[in-house]
Amino acid sequence: MASTRIREATERDCGDILRMIRELAEYEKLSHQVKISEEALRADGFGENPSFHCLVAEVIPAPGELQGQGIGTKIIKKVAEVALCKGCSQFRLAVLDWNKKAMDLYKSLGAQDLTELEGWHSFRFEEAAMRELAGW
Amino acid sequence: MASTRIREATERDCGDILRMIRELAEYEKLSHQVKISEEALRADGFGENPSFHCLVAEVIPAPGELQGQGIGTKIIKKVAEVALCKGCSQFRLAVLDWNKKAMDLYKSLGAQDLTELEGWHSFRFEEAAMRELAGW
Repeated sequence: MASTRIREATERDCGDILRMIRELAEYEKLSHQVKISEEALRADGFGENPSFHCLVAEVIPAPGELQGQGIGTKIIKKVAEVALCKGCSQFRLAVLDWNKKAMDLYKSLGAQDLTELEGWHSFRFEEAAMRELAGW
Repeated sequence: MASTRIREATERDCGDILRMIRELAEYEKLSHQVKISEEALRADGFGENPSFHCLVAEVIPAPGELQGQGIGTKIIKKVAEVALCKGCSQFRLAVLDWNKKAMDLYKSLGAQDLTELEGWHSFRFEEAAMRELAGW
């Protein structure tokens, strides 16, 4: 069984965080959308009013596969705990419709698929559109 | 033509904000999901580390309908401006699949429907599931 420790990320993790963002994007076939730099991650997440919070799972894998060790479940449990501590009454995740493994995991942990159940679509305005709108 | 002024919300707007949240939820047929109180809005939005920011459109309507005066467009333009000022590189909206009017507006303003284009689904963990996960 893998040994897992989940902790708050620090500034020094930004290199690893960016690497994992890129690995995830590659898995999601969306690598072209990753434009953030390590410096921007540092500035956005570890300044005075951070725009994001990040947990890091440190894993010493057991022999064999990394997957199937329950790391995803452990992180989601920790997210739930942190969110409750901060006074949140819900939290959300975005998942691609072909990522059945992730969807099944989230559902098994009690999440509802709002897109399926209620028809919610996610709309994104990108920077070019924002500049156009703001007249910049 | 209606006269519209868009400004940052203040604590004193929380009563009106809650009323509009309820009116929107009614339109969305999701009234049962509105659990927030005016006090919680005040605490979450106007304390030291606010969890949300809110713009208010003050409108003096022209004779006739309120709709079709371009208020939605004006608010989205302002959101784009505020987001750019805060260093954001994108912003997102959630919209119900039967709300074609809203979808068409957002698309005409340059937004992409990520659910349609890339297959993103929105998953929600509610408080009961969070407590279960955290073992609270």
